[in-house]
Amino acid sequence: MIIIMETNSTREQSQRVIDFLEKNGFQVRYNIGEVHTVIDALGDKTTITPGRIAAFDGVKEVKVIREPYRLASRDRKSEDTIIEFKNGVKIGGTNRPVIIAGPCSVEDDYNSLKEIAQAVKECGGQFLRGGAFKPRTSPYDFQGYGEKALKYLKQASEETGLLTVSEVMDASDLDMMIDYVDVLQIGARNVQNFRLLKAVGKCNKPVILKRGLSSTIREFLLAAEHIMYNGNNQVILCERGIRSFDSDFTRNVMDIASIPVIKKYSHLPIIVDPSHGTGQRYLIEPLSKAGLVVGASGIMIEVHNDPENALSDGKQSLPIPMFKDVMKNINSFMDKI
Amino acid sequence: MIIIMETNSTREQSQRVIDFLEKNGFQVRYNIGEVHTVIDALGDKTTITPGRIAAFDGVKEVKVIREPYRLASRDRKSEDTIIEFKNGVKIGGTNRPVIIAGPCSVEDDYNSLKEIAQAVKECGGQFLRGGAFKPRTSPYDFQGYGEKALKYLKQASEETGLLTVSEVMDASDLDMMIDYVDVLQIGARNVQNFRLLKAVGKCNKPVILKRGLSSTIREFLLAAEHIMYNGNNQVILCERGIRSFDSDFTRNVMDIASIPVIKKYSHLPIIVDPSHGTGQRYLIEPLSKAGLVVGASGIMIEVHNDPENALSDGKQSLPIPMFKDVMKNINSFMDKI
Amino acid sequence: MIIIMETNSTREQSQRVIDFLEKNGFQVRYNIGEVHTVIDALGDKTTITPGRIAAFDGVKEVKVIREPYRLASRDRKSEDTIIEFKNGVKIGGTNRPVIIAGPCSVEDDYNSLKEIAQAVKECGGQFLRGGAFKPRTSPYDFQGYGEKALKYLKQASEETGLLTVSEVMDASDLDMMIDYVDVLQIGARNVQNFRLLKAVGKCNKPVILKRGLSSTIREFLLAAEHIMYNGNNQVILCERGIRSFDSDFTRNVMDIASIPVIKKYSHLPIIVDPSHGTGQRYLIEPLSKAGLVVGASGIMIEVHNDPENALSDGKQSLPIPMFKDVMKNINSFMDKI
Amino acid sequence: MIIIMETNSTREQSQRVIDFLEKNGFQVRYNIGEVHTVIDALGDKTTITPGRIAAFDGVKEVKVIREPYRLASRDRKSEDTIIEFKNGVKIGGTNRPVIIAGPCSVEDDYNSLKEIAQAVKECGGQFLRGGAFKPRTSPYDFQGYGEKALKYLKQASEETGLLTVSEVMDASDLDMMIDYVDVLQIGARNVQNFRLLKAVGKCNKPVILKRGLSSTIREFLLAAEHIMYNGNNQVILCERGIRSFDSDFTRNVMDIASIPVIKKYSHLPIIVDPSHGTGQRYLIEPLSKAGLVVGASGIMIEVHNDPENALSDGKQSLPIPMFKDVMKNINSFMDKI
Repeated sequence: MIIIMETNSTREQSQRVIDFLEKNGFQVRYNIGEVHTVIDALGDKTTITPGRIAAFDGVKEVKVIREPYRLASRDRKSEDTIIEFKNGVKIGGTNRPVIIAGPCSVEDDYNSLKEIAQAVKECGGQFLRGGAFKPRTSPYDFQGYGEKALKYLKQASEETGLLTVSEVMDASDLDMMIDYVDVLQIGARNVQNFRLLKAVGKCNKPVILKRGLSSTIREFLLAAEHIMYNGNNQVILCERGIRSFDSDFTRNVMDIASIPVIKKYSHLPIIVDPSHGTGQRYLIEPLSKAGLVVGASGIMIEVHNDPENALSDGKQSLPIPMFKDVMKNINSFMDKI
Repeated sequence: MIIIMETNSTREQSQRVIDFLEKNGFQVRYNIGEVHTVIDALGDKTTITPGRIAAFDGVKEVKVIREPYRLASRDRKSEDTIIEFKNGVKIGGTNRPVIIAGPCSVEDDYNSLKEIAQAVKECGGQFLRGGAFKPRTSPYDFQGYGEKALKYLKQASEETGLLTVSEVMDASDLDMMIDYVDVLQIGARNVQNFRLLKAVGKCNKPVILKRGLSSTIREFLLAAEHIMYNGNNQVILCERGIRSFDSDFTRNVMDIASIPVIKKYSHLPIIVDPSHGTGQRYLIEPLSKAGLVVGASGIMIEVHNDPENALSDGKQSLPIPMFKDVMKNINSFMDKI
Repeated sequence: MIIIMETNSTREQSQRVIDFLEKNGFQVRYNIGEVHTVIDALGDKTTITPGRIAAFDGVKEVKVIREPYRLASRDRKSEDTIIEFKNGVKIGGTNRPVIIAGPCSVEDDYNSLKEIAQAVKECGGQFLRGGAFKPRTSPYDFQGYGEKALKYLKQASEETGLLTVSEVMDASDLDMMIDYVDVLQIGARNVQNFRLLKAVGKCNKPVILKRGLSSTIREFLLAAEHIMYNGNNQVILCERGIRSFDSDFTRNVMDIASIPVIKKYSHLPIIVDPSHGTGQRYLIEPLSKAGLVVGASGIMIEVHNDPENALSDGKQSLPIPMFKDVMKNINSFMDKI
Repeated sequence: MIIIMETNSTREQSQRVIDFLEKNGFQVRYNIGEVHTVIDALGDKTTITPGRIAAFDGVKEVKVIREPYRLASRDRKSEDTIIEFKNGVKIGGTNRPVIIAGPCSVEDDYNSLKEIAQAVKECGGQFLRGGAFKPRTSPYDFQGYGEKALKYLKQASEETGLLTVSEVMDASDLDMMIDYVDVLQIGARNVQNFRLLKAVGKCNKPVILKRGLSSTIREFLLAAEHIMYNGNNQVILCERGIRSFDSDFTRNVMDIASIPVIKKYSHLPIIVDPSHGTGQRYLIEPLSKAGLVVGASGIMIEVHNDPENALSDGKQSLPIPMFKDVMKNINSFMDKI
């Protein structure tokens, strides 16, 4: 790490930092200057964290050189992580991007779900997504049908051959959920729910981890690191838009550049979710294509047989006929690029 | 709610929305104009949510008139909520603002904690805070000493008469924690961990709820609503800074104006945390005073007997002598205003 | 406009607003409710602005229904604006997207500029961009060579047949610049320099208007409206990234979704600038493609014959050989989509 | 500066950077490591800017150690800058904070302005502010009465003894304005209008420079540096709120902490503008006090004799009776702290 001292710090303050680092086994290079003092220290940051050095008097800033995630880093594993499912579907690397689609929430009508699942299958999708537990900003909003929803999801999966994806909101649900879903999803609001990350890290199930509304790319990769650190390397990142100063026309701002950035610094696959990323039906096709062209390993789309009666997120869900049109264009686009 | 139609929407699209609302018992007023169509609907938004209407074709935007929180709203309860503790300490209303102070993490040395607790007591503080479970961005950082830390906290409380505050990260820890702490804290990263909010809502313990890094004021009050909706009205809000485009000099931006805004729209008490809000020792005194002068019901400060060896947040923790100076100035300021 | 009253406002306060609006010729519909009062007023907002109504006691919020830009709106002109140049080059509509490329600053060596211009031409570009006046955050940074740079630019244009683009920083430079450039550019930092917008609005020259670092889409279109209102309809919008909370890996966040949003609400062409949008060479190709696939009418790329010696923006400038590779891929991508 | 190389950069890439720096007279220290390479270079950054080094292949990041502003820096001038006016009024240092108040725009009725000016005077104010040229997001909004407004302002100043403040939007207006105003104001939208900064830097008039909606503190100080670099040291900074993700209850977020931060790093005085910072009348008193308690050298408040008929910013303007109440509380607060 690099320690930058305040310009008005004293020689003694710098020396205290240097002595402390050397005492703790760091290799230290420094130049106590008239104008500025910079200390470069090489050593084990798990014992002496940057935060401890920052607390010394006279320190202006501590800059860590190496990216703080390790297991998620391409430095440690240069080849792309590829996640393979029992039925041969693969996510990541040079595999054709996957399609994950379905209703925001699984509702209390199996036939609707089946109709949606059949449309997903027909359009070449591999995964059926559907919420059983819904994080909702207001306690007065619909919170999902729980296990019943998961049962429907599994049934639809068995009838269509689609794999299933559903969000886990709490570690205590994991045991039950494991039987129903092929991929666990962690929502944007739980990206720093570290207990949940830990619990999911102990499962042997692929995980879709959504970027938080205000996660930096580095924090996002550190959230993945929490899962991997606990033993689960099957992490699929998902860009779903970040919060900005402008939400007049789109719910969030899709940070499309995060996809090639993450592919440069990490070996993990990353997919895009234009439904949550934009909150607008008419933007799903263009933003899906934008995600694909920059290297996304999949897209996640909300589709509903009757959006006007959807219990959540109807505005951004595609009606089935529109979904079919969009998928036709996306499939043809994937063939071309 | 107000439904604003797209300018190029059709008369039929507007009519479908109107019919649907009327069929569902809403009082509807509208004016299908040449240029723009606006529909004003009065009715029960728990059955027909704004999101469902937004999903109709031709709808540009649905605007909810009434603030969506109810139990937290001053409309429903005009007098300030005051939270009273067994020893007579009160938070909220016109009571003198409280001081909550202590180390970021409780460390493996009871004497240090005791020394800090005594300083807090001596400076007129009422609450000893200390982390037992630490949410950490990186899995390689120190995560807290768990129950052992809580035992120390309770012991220090018994020796000094201070009340205790500690963060709960997961519902499964609640039963254990209840015995040790007087106030549960929910951290910024868990402000939309709805399961945790629900679980805490079922406890009979005051809760400090921290604003999320990118929580709007409305979302923040809705998070409080989740707790209250589950039965616990003893919610203390805490402004601790929001994420902005500038973190060169301060970790976060303290949204000082949120305090009088929240006091206008809600009856819940709100405190400030300048330690996390700024991340800089030299800003703790001025930002504490700024919080107090706009109506905060308390301040939360990190203090450590040896910040350079603190296991977390040393940079923003006040060393004990500096804490005493700051508290002298803050106490004298509270006497004057 | 829709006027939403505070829940604790009085009947008299509502009545004063209604009377005022009616007196000023507005058609007013309202419902003074127990719980909430909403007033819907239809009339000429140029005499009675929303701001005036907002100032009445008891008003919580005034919501304008119609988008505030008019000349820039697709409501007023449904067909795409196409900007045509003397040599037949066209921007906008279904025309093949244009390539605008060149150095950040024109430097004091004509041969370098010529070499770059030839590369642009060879790769199928239509426009040579180059800064003569550089807005720089620090007064100690290079500010451009002024008219000399423009002369070089024009000379390179004559030798290659490329059209020229250069940024105008002040209205007082316009008369001089007009002779040298085919397209005036307004930089992100001047997007709300209303005097400059007005002055450029009085020129008969196409204008590239860059989105400001914190411009909402609506403000961006209103900036275009300032130019059009003063008589110049030849406005080309440019998405170049917005400021967010994360600048660790990219200088700005490219708001790719803004392109289809703007194409829905405005008839003006919009191009993308991935060089400023990301600040990273390796992101220029993917983000150019992302822009194109969502409908951008052109791309603007910084290229330099010797980026390590560039006087500005070397980090994000493509060296000529890399530019040729990128352009080969972009051209082939344009053929496919 | 510190140069951090990419982890996958080559030894040759590092060596090229080192050689270049040494050739240009920099003192260079480095350690080409297995894992990471950091180069520390001390020298004249006006010839070799950080941007040039960033453009070398293999460079991940260039970090400048010293704050980039010089004339504005407390390193170069440790004592507070105090700006003194002909009538003995002083801004900065330990002088009692000044009050700058008046209408957003000067309107076409001198008596109104006079009434406001008398109220400002009566409440102990020193400066009358009033817009003659108004930057407006929409071209359809009122843009100010120009020189006529300035004449009124000067007349009111002569009748009351107040000093005058008015915004300059374009360098071409400066000669005319100089005769009417005692302090030039640069608005938030022009904080990076570098030509205007330069022109104002050549005037011998104090300048109030408002922070931009998305200016970092460092960029804000660099904007001041542009003025000082051109010869004018009489710069008064003004915190007026920054843009955030939440504008439901306040127009902007007042970054109160910026005041003590700026006072630590710069010798320039800084004032607060709670009217623009919040956009809400009821927040003006609390946020004024918050600004004062953290060290602001003045407050700027919008006041109007008839806010409901104000041509701009009525919502946030205090009516005269409310202004008097607020000022009574603020004056008494200044006496106490």
